[in-house]
Amino acid sequence: MEPGDAARLGPGRAARALPPRLLLLPLLPLLLGRGLRAAAAASSGAAAEDSSAMEELATEKEAEESHRQDSVSLLTFILLLTLTILTIWLFKHRRVRFLHETGLAMIYGLIVGVILRYGTPATSGHDKSLSCTQEDRAFSTLLVNVSGKFFEYTLKGEISPGKINSVEQNDMLRKVTFDPEVFFNILLPPIIFHAGYSLKKRHFFRNLGSILAYAFLGTAVSCFIIGNLMYGVVKLMKIVGQLSDKFYYTDCLFFGAIISATDPVTVLAIFNELHADVDLYALLFGESVLNDAVAIVLSSSIVAYQPAGLNTHAFDAAAFFKSVGIFLGIFSGSFTMGAVTGVVTALVTKFTKLHCFPLLETALFFLMSWSTFLLAEACGFTGVVAVLFCGITQAHYTYNNLSVESRSRTKQLFEVLHFLAENFIFSYMGLALFTFQKHVFSPVFIIGAFVAIFLGRAAHIYPLSFFLNLGRRHKIGWNFQHMMMFSGLRGAMAFALAIRDTASYARQMMFTTTLLIVFFTVWIIGGGTTPMLSWLNIRVGVDPDQDPPPNNDSFQVLQGDGPDSARGNRTKQESAWLFRLWYSFDHNYLKPILTHSGPPLTTTLPAWCSLLARCLTSPQVYDNQEPLREEDSDFILTEGDLTLTYGDSTVTANGSSGSHTASTSLEGSRRTKSSSEEVLDRALGAGDQPVSSRGTRLVFPLEDNA
Amino acid sequence: MEPGDAARLGPGRAARALPPRLLLLPLLPLLLGRGLRAAAAASSGAAAEDSSAMEELATEKEAEESHRQDSVSLLTFILLLTLTILTIWLFKHRRVRFLHETGLAMIYGLIVGVILRYGTPATSGHDKSLSCTQEDRAFSTLLVNVSGKFFEYTLKGEISPGKINSVEQNDMLRKVTFDPEVFFNILLPPIIFHAGYSLKKRHFFRNLGSILAYAFLGTAVSCFIIGNLMYGVVKLMKIVGQLSDKFYYTDCLFFGAIISATDPVTVLAIFNELHADVDLYALLFGESVLNDAVAIVLSSSIVAYQPAGLNTHAFDAAAFFKSVGIFLGIFSGSFTMGAVTGVVTALVTKFTKLHCFPLLETALFFLMSWSTFLLAEACGFTGVVAVLFCGITQAHYTYNNLSVESRSRTKQLFEVLHFLAENFIFSYMGLALFTFQKHVFSPVFIIGAFVAIFLGRAAHIYPLSFFLNLGRRHKIGWNFQHMMMFSGLRGAMAFALAIRDTASYARQMMFTTTLLIVFFTVWIIGGGTTPMLSWLNIRVGVDPDQDPPPNNDSFQVLQGDGPDSARGNRTKQESAWLFRLWYSFDHNYLKPILTHSGPPLTTTLPAWCSLLARCLTSPQVYDNQEPLREEDSDFILTEGDLTLTYGDSTVTANGSSGSHTASTSLEGSRRTKSSSEEVLDRALGAGDQPVSSRGTRLVFPLEDNA
Repeated sequence: MEPGDAARLGPGRAARALPPRLLLLPLLPLLLGRGLRAAAAASSGAAAEDSSAMEELATEKEAEESHRQDSVSLLTFILLLTLTILTIWLFKHRRVRFLHETGLAMIYGLIVGVILRYGTPATSGHDKSLSCTQEDRAFSTLLVNVSGKFFEYTLKGEISPGKINSVEQNDMLRKVTFDPEVFFNILLPPIIFHAGYSLKKRHFFRNLGSILAYAFLGTAVSCFIIGNLMYGVVKLMKIVGQLSDKFYYTDCLFFGAIISATDPVTVLAIFNELHADVDLYALLFGESVLNDAVAIVLSSSIVAYQPAGLNTHAFDAAAFFKSVGIFLGIFSGSFTMGAVTGVVTALVTKFTKLHCFPLLETALFFLMSWSTFLLAEACGFTGVVAVLFCGITQAHYTYNNLSVESRSRTKQLFEVLHFLAENFIFSYMGLALFTFQKHVFSPVFIIGAFVAIFLGRAAHIYPLSFFLNLGRRHKIGWNFQHMMMFSGLRGAMAFALAIRDTASYARQMMFTTTLLIVFFTVWIIGGGTTPMLSWLNIRVGVDPDQDPPPNNDSFQVLQGDGPDSARGNRTKQESAWLFRLWYSFDHNYLKPILTHSGPPLTTTLPAWCSLLARCLTSPQVYDNQEPLREEDSDFILTEGDLTLTYGDSTVTANGSSGSHTASTSLEGSRRTKSSSEEVLDRALGAGDQPVSSRGTRLVFPLEDNA
Repeated sequence: MEPGDAARLGPGRAARALPPRLLLLPLLPLLLGRGLRAAAAASSGAAAEDSSAMEELATEKEAEESHRQDSVSLLTFILLLTLTILTIWLFKHRRVRFLHETGLAMIYGLIVGVILRYGTPATSGHDKSLSCTQEDRAFSTLLVNVSGKFFEYTLKGEISPGKINSVEQNDMLRKVTFDPEVFFNILLPPIIFHAGYSLKKRHFFRNLGSILAYAFLGTAVSCFIIGNLMYGVVKLMKIVGQLSDKFYYTDCLFFGAIISATDPVTVLAIFNELHADVDLYALLFGESVLNDAVAIVLSSSIVAYQPAGLNTHAFDAAAFFKSVGIFLGIFSGSFTMGAVTGVVTALVTKFTKLHCFPLLETALFFLMSWSTFLLAEACGFTGVVAVLFCGITQAHYTYNNLSVESRSRTKQLFEVLHFLAENFIFSYMGLALFTFQKHVFSPVFIIGAFVAIFLGRAAHIYPLSFFLNLGRRHKIGWNFQHMMMFSGLRGAMAFALAIRDTASYARQMMFTTTLLIVFFTVWIIGGGTTPMLSWLNIRVGVDPDQDPPPNNDSFQVLQGDGPDSARGNRTKQESAWLFRLWYSFDHNYLKPILTHSGPPLTTTLPAWCSLLARCLTSPQVYDNQEPLREEDSDFILTEGDLTLTYGDSTVTANGSSGSHTASTSLEGSRRTKSSSEEVLDRALGAGDQPVSSRGTRLVFPLEDNA
C-alpha cells in the first residue's frame, strides 16, 4: 500500500473502521488515531466537493474522539507504571521486602481493573453492523459499492453465531486490552535478552550440566506430570458435571507446558539484594531462563501435534515423533540463530574500530540483537528463544570488544527496557483479572492445578537433584533443593503463553487458572522468600561482585564451617567434563577469534592454520598481551579459576587456606583496575572468586535490615 | 475486544485479511504475523472438526509466509541501518566530512529502493476481491454470512473507482512502505525530545529573542512567500498545460508551511565537530528546533482553514482568523502541556529520594516524557510540539535533580533513540524515491520550488536580521547571516509533513518535490558546509564545552582582532530585557522550587509566603548550600555569567582582559569538579564562558584535518 492510502479513508465511520484487535501496541493507537484524524482532515480538504461537509465533520470528531480514548488508555498504563515506580522507591527506601515490585504492579493493575470494570459505564458500542449474505466462502477483501463510491473492507475474523450480539462491549475495557502477540513480540524479547545479557556467565557455565538438566528434563517431566494430573482432574470434573465443554488430553499437556515455565524474578531480586549464595542463584536463574525457552518450544510442539485421521486427540506415534522433531528443530534452529548473530556482532566489533564511537557501537549492538529476533522469525524459528542465546553470546564475546561507555550504555539500555516491559506485563496481569471478559473460574480445576504444579515441581527438583548429585562433585544440598522447590514462581512467560490463545473454553479456563497461579505465587512466595532463606539456613551477604572484607570473610569461614555450610559448599566448582571441554575450546579458540583477549591463535591452532590464525588474531593480542590480560578481568579470573578447578581437591579439602591464596592472587591481578568499569565488569559475573561461597548466615532477616 | 479474538480468525485467508495499512510499525508486522500464525495453529487445533484440514493447512502456510515477508522487510531496514553505521564509522575514522551520515543513509536507501523496484518481480497480489453492492452508506463493520459461518469485516477505506484494479501491487514494495503516521508518532518524538533535551540552554536563552523571531516570524514569512511564489508557478503551469489536476492556493500555502521547517542536522553536526561559533550554533539550532514546531502547527492550521460556503478555496476572513486562533491555541496548549509535565517530573524527582535508584529514576523520566506526548494528543494538541518543550523543561530543571548515573542514562537513552530514528527516516527517504508509486515529477514545479525556498529563506533571514540588529547589542554579522541563509536544509520534519497526506494530485506533487529538495539540500549543503565556513571566515575550534588552552586563546585574541572577529563577536551576550527578566525569575523562583539549587526561597519570596517557601525549599539548600553551589555547575556559571551580563559594557569594550578575568574565576569554580559527570554537565550547555567566542580561524579545513 502507498503512504497516502490512509488519507483515502472514506467519509464513513472511519474511526470505528479499525479492527480493535490492532489497537494494541503502546504506540499504535496514536498512530492509527492520528492517521485517521489526518485522513479525515485531508478528506475534508480535498474531497470537500464530493460529499456533505456535515458528515465529514462528524467523522472527524469521531476519529478525534477515538484517538483521545486511545491516548487516555495508554496514559492509564503509564500512570500505573509511574505509580508503581514511586511505590517501589518507597518500599526500597524503607527496605520492605515482603512485596516485590512485580507484585506491586499487579496490585495496582488489579485496582485499576476493578475501577474500569465497575466504574465506567458499559457503553454499548456505536458500531453499525450490517449483514450481507454471501454464498460461498470468506474472502480477505470485500469491495462494497455504496451509492457509487467503493469502500474496501478487510476480514477481521470469524465470529461464532452466539457472539454476534456481544461484539459491542464496554469501550474502555476494549481500549485497555492489548493483542496477546504484543507480549510475545514486543514485551518478552527485551526481558529475555536482558536475562541472557546479564547472566552471570561463570556461575552459569560452571553449573551448566545441572542447569540444562533442570531446564530440559525438568520442564519435560513437570509438563507431563502436570498434564496427566490435570487430565485426571478434568475427568473428575466431567464425572461431577463441572465441565461444560471439550477438554482434551493435548489441552492438558499444553497447560502443563505453559505452567512449567518458572520465573523466579521476585526470588532472584531478593537473592540479589541479600547477596545469597551465588551457585543457588545461578541454578535458579539459569533454570528459569532456559525453561522459558523450553516451555515456548514445548507448547508450540504440543500445538503442532496433530494426528492424522478424524479422532484428532488420540495418541499417534507418527505425530508424536513429529512433535519431538519440531521441538528439536525449533530449539536448535533458534539457538543457532541467536549464537550466530552474537558471533557476527562480536566479529564486527572486533575488526572495526567502532569502539571510538560509543553511540554507533551501541546502535549497532541494538540493531544486531534485534535482527536476531527477526531472522529467527523469518526462518520460522522462535524469536524469543533466539534472542536469549544471542544475549548470552553477546555477553560472553561482544561485551569484551565494546568500549567502556558502550558496555554501560548497552547494559543500561536493556535494563530500562526490561524493567519497563516486566512491570508493564505484571500490571497488565492485574488489570486482566477484571477486564478480561471471558474468564472461566472453575474451583476444581484451580485447586487441581495448584496441587499439580506443586507435585510437578517436586517430581522435577528432588529426583533430578538426586541424579545430579550422583555425578556432581559438589552436591546440591537439601536446603538448596527445598529453596528451588519453593522458588517455582510463575510469571510473565506463563501469562504470555496462556493469553496467546484464549479462543476455546479449555484455553479460557487455563488462562484464568494461570492468572491466579501467577498472582498467588508472586505474592505468597515473593513475600516468603526472606523467611524461607533464613529457615533453610542459606547463607546471605555473599557478594559475588565485590571482594568481601578479609576479616569478615575469615570470621565467616570459621563460623560457617558447620554442616549446613559444608552442604551448601558442595555446589561449588562443579568441574564436570562438559565444563572443562567447553572451557578449553572457548578459551583457546573462540575467545581469541571473537575478542581481543585470550592466547594468540597462532599458539593454539595447529601449524597448518597459521595463515588463518594470523588473520584472525587481533594485533592487540600481540602488541600488548600483558596489559590486555590485566584489563580483561574475565579472562584473568577464568584463568585463575581454571587452576583452582583442576586443583580443586586441595582447595575444597583445605577450604579456607586454598581459597585464601586464590583470592590473594586474584586481588593482585585486579588491583590494576581502578575505574568505574570495574563495577560493571564484575556485574557481568567476571569478578567472582572461590571465597564467595562464604558469608553471613541470615538469622533474623527482617529485624536485621529494618 | 478480548485477548483471544485473534484466535477466532476464520479459516479463510486470514493472512491477507490484515489491512496492509496497518502493517507498518517496525514491530507490528511480526505481531500480526505471529498472531495469525498462532491463530491458524489454534484454529487448526480447536476447530479441526469444523472445517477441512487441508484448507487450514493452506491458511497456516500463507500466514507464515506473510509473517516471514514482514520479518524480511524489517530485516532489510535493519541491515540498511547497520550498513550505514559501519560506513559512518569508516567516514568518521577517515575524517570524511563531505557526506554526513544522514546523506549516507539516504544513498543506501536509494540503492535498496532501486533494487526493490526493479529487482523484484511485480507479483500481482493473491487477494480475492469480491463486490457486494450496498445501497445506503458505508458502515464500519460488516458481518458476512458464508454458508452458515459469520465473518467480521472492517472498513479499510474508500477506493477511487480507477484504483480498484491497481490495489494489487508488488508485495515487497508494499511491505517496505510504512504508514506515514509512524513518522509522526514513533520516529519524530524521540528526535524532537532529544533536540529539546540536548539544547545548549545558556546560548539558547541568551539568544532567545532572535531565535523566537526567526522561528515564528521567519517561518510565517517564509511560508507566505513560498506559498505565493508557488501559486504563481502553479498558475504558470496551468497556462502552459503542465497541470493535470486541481491545485488551490491553500495547497500552495500548505507546501510553504511544510517546506519552511529547516533541519540543519548536517550543518550542526559539522559545527559540533569543528567547534564552530556557539552563538551561531545556538541561533541555527534554536531556530530549526522551534520552526519544526511552528511548521507542524502552521500546516495543520492551514488544513483547518475551511471557509464556509461552496467555493471552499476563496479567502474568508472568519476562516482565516479561526486558523490563526487554532494556531495560537494548539501552540500554546502544546507548550503548556510540555512545560507542565516537565515541571511535574522535576517536582517528583526533587521531593522523592528516587536518585538512589537510577534505574527507577530513568524509567520514571522516560515514562513522564512519553506521557507528555499522550497527554497532548489526548487533549487535542500536538504531541510532537509538547515533547519539544517537555525536553527543554526536563533539561533545565529535572536534569539537575537526577543522580549522576541517571543523567548519563537519560542522555544516552534518548541519544540512541534519536540516532536510530533519524537514520531510519533518512534511509526511508532514499527508499521512498523508488518505492513510492505515485510520484508526480513536474520539472516546472520542482524548479519553481527550489527558487521559492531560496527566496523564502532570503526574505526571512536578511530582513529579520536587519531588524534584530537594531535591537541587539551584539549584532548578527553578515557572515553569520550568510551562513544561516546557506544552512536552510530541509530534513525529517518536511518529509514527515509531506508524506502524511499524499492522497490528492497536488499533495503527491508536493511530496515528490519535498523529497528532491531534501536530497539536494542534504547532499549539496551538507557537503559544502566546511568550505562555506572557511569562505565566510567563521571561527572554528571554539569548544564551548572545554576550556581552550590559555596560550592558544590569548594568541587567537590577538590574531582574531580583525574586523571579522569583531563582527562575529557582536552576537555574544545579547542581554535583552527578555532574557534578564526571564533569568531573574527563573533563578529566584523556578530553580529553587523545582531543583535543589538556587537561593533558598525563604530569601527570595516575600515574607508572607514564608510557610510556603519553607515547604518548597529542599533541605539540601539550607544544609549544604556551599557544596551544592560547587556541584551544580549550571547554577554557578549562570551566576558568573550574570555578573558579566550586567557588566558587559566593560567586558566587550575591553574584550581580552575582561574575558580573561571571567575565565579565570570560572575555572576556579570549576576546578572543584573532577569526575566524569563534568563532561556531561558541560555537554548540556552548562560549561560555557565568554572566552568561547575566540578561537582559531579555519583556513584550509580539509587539509588541516586530514
